[in-house]
Amino acid sequence: MAVYTEVSDEELEAFLVPYHLGRLLSYKGIAEGVENSNFMLHTDKGFYFLTLYEKRVAKSDLPFFLGLMNHLAGKGIACPVPLRNERGEMLGELAGRSAALISFLEGISVRRPQPRHCAALGRALAELHLAGRDFELTRENSLSVSGWRPLLQSCGARADEVLAGLGVELETELATLEREWPRALPQGVIHADLFPDNVFFIGDDLSGVFDFYFACNDALAYDLAICLNAWCFEGDGAFNITKARALLQAYTQVRPLDAAELHALPLLARGSAMRFLLTRLYDWLNHPPGAFVNPKNPLEYLKRLRFHRGITSPAGYGLDA
Amino acid sequence: MAVYTEVSDEELEAFLVPYHLGRLLSYKGIAEGVENSNFMLHTDKGFYFLTLYEKRVAKSDLPFFLGLMNHLAGKGIACPVPLRNERGEMLGELAGRSAALISFLEGISVRRPQPRHCAALGRALAELHLAGRDFELTRENSLSVSGWRPLLQSCGARADEVLAGLGVELETELATLEREWPRALPQGVIHADLFPDNVFFIGDDLSGVFDFYFACNDALAYDLAICLNAWCFEGDGAFNITKARALLQAYTQVRPLDAAELHALPLLARGSAMRFLLTRLYDWLNHPPGAFVNPKNPLEYLKRLRFHRGITSPAGYGLDA
Repeated sequence: MAVYTEVSDEELEAFLVPYHLGRLLSYKGIAEGVENSNFMLHTDKGFYFLTLYEKRVAKSDLPFFLGLMNHLAGKGIACPVPLRNERGEMLGELAGRSAALISFLEGISVRRPQPRHCAALGRALAELHLAGRDFELTRENSLSVSGWRPLLQSCGARADEVLAGLGVELETELATLEREWPRALPQGVIHADLFPDNVFFIGDDLSGVFDFYFACNDALAYDLAICLNAWCFEGDGAFNITKARALLQAYTQVRPLDAAELHALPLLARGSAMRFLLTRLYDWLNHPPGAFVNPKNPLEYLKRLRFHRGITSPAGYGLDA
Repeated sequence: MAVYTEVSDEELEAFLVPYHLGRLLSYKGIAEGVENSNFMLHTDKGFYFLTLYEKRVAKSDLPFFLGLMNHLAGKGIACPVPLRNERGEMLGELAGRSAALISFLEGISVRRPQPRHCAALGRALAELHLAGRDFELTRENSLSVSGWRPLLQSCGARADEVLAGLGVELETELATLEREWPRALPQGVIHADLFPDNVFFIGDDLSGVFDFYFACNDALAYDLAICLNAWCFEGDGAFNITKARALLQAYTQVRPLDAAELHALPLLARGSAMRFLLTRLYDWLNHPPGAFVNPKNPLEYLKRLRFHRGITSPAGYGLDA
């Protein structure tokens, strides 16, 4: 949660001119997002979101992210849409940062997703995958299997500071994942970070999906495996098969999984658990003392990883074999 | 800038029920305010501000602050108004904190006030003073002259870490202020922290005054002296007499100053500079290393203090003698 860059009213008003949104009536820094600075704007025309992209987002990726949101919204996916200024540009510059003005998405993140939320998510994810099929830009997933070994190496022997034996366990797991990782599954644009805090609901209705700043091209079923980890485990680490079944059934009703995808699901789930375990482990070991953002506990994902290791077929996730 | 307390959607929705505002459509933590946690809410009925009072605000002071906002708004002053729930209460509890739902005030803070802004401020301040006359609650100003010596003592010998000789200069100044401080000036409710970031404008029109969490009873002219310091000096510390004249003339057109107030103005301005110098000095010497909020430079107020010491009559502020 942060606003890293201060924006003066004069700069902001000058930035807004080519968008023709009337007078600026209000703007407030939003305490969310750890990558960017976000502001909520009110003008004569309505409410908008302003994002200033900070260093952690590569400038060269922004056309992919903004173009994707624009593409998906054009296909009817409920997600924020970048506004274009009078020059047709979705990306501008403000306070020395790349900046985009984005439609305001209503809704509330669900802290404790229920099976009905998981079902709504499954449908939305499948629709997102279908809608992304003809998006013309591509972006490699730098946090897929080839990116995990460098991450693990950067943690090095310090993994055992978090849990005795963790280094060896991750090394063994990684060797398996590298050897067995499926390379021929149906590919497409994936969200790659579709946690409950990146999905809005109004009441029980999913009102939108957002934060596309990890989106990339990868196996579509891998996105589903990320959601299994992010939505279908309880606070105590227990797997909730009712939620998993709701998620997977709803997904497959819109986009059926082929046999290879079904077979790969446990391994993809292990990989996804590894990915979040490693980034959290890295942040855990490397966050500056006294930092404002508390790192998330990597061991939540070790529990998930171990669980998926025990799953041998999609039936373990509630799908009929 | 901060949200210190996380609020879950379930807790928030339960809190909102007795306000009858329809469905909750959106809520976002706001990155502003160093004392409290603030959220912007959207419901079927509109946009609202939610404040959770953190430790630095005394719970016993909240009826004064909220009652004052309610009183002033009832008199036509443009300021946020606390909403009452079905039990008639302006103050509730949420996430273990005292909490209030407050009307959303439109507008933008001016970073570099111009004379026209100072004139608008002067009018609004005088109207606020008049509107506050019959407010029934009272609150002592703990940051007036009797509070300065304990503050200076808590900084002790460390004042000279900021500037050689600062300790002696402040000690001498404080002795003068304690000896000569005027006690018989017209009293009333003052805002006591009316910096440009606590005033909103839309275009050139003042749209509202907010952040009443230092409001108290004190000499009305002292509030004006605070505004002189907060609005009428340039970034380089230079006094801008055009702005001061605009502020004072606009104020006195609504609420004329009596002879004693006019005579006391330079001393009140010294006192106000001392007050902000001391709290900034304390924060400067005591902020934890790596803290998220950067302390403000106390020496800005030493410059102001020295300036006011050279003023011998209201003419020094642009008023006719």
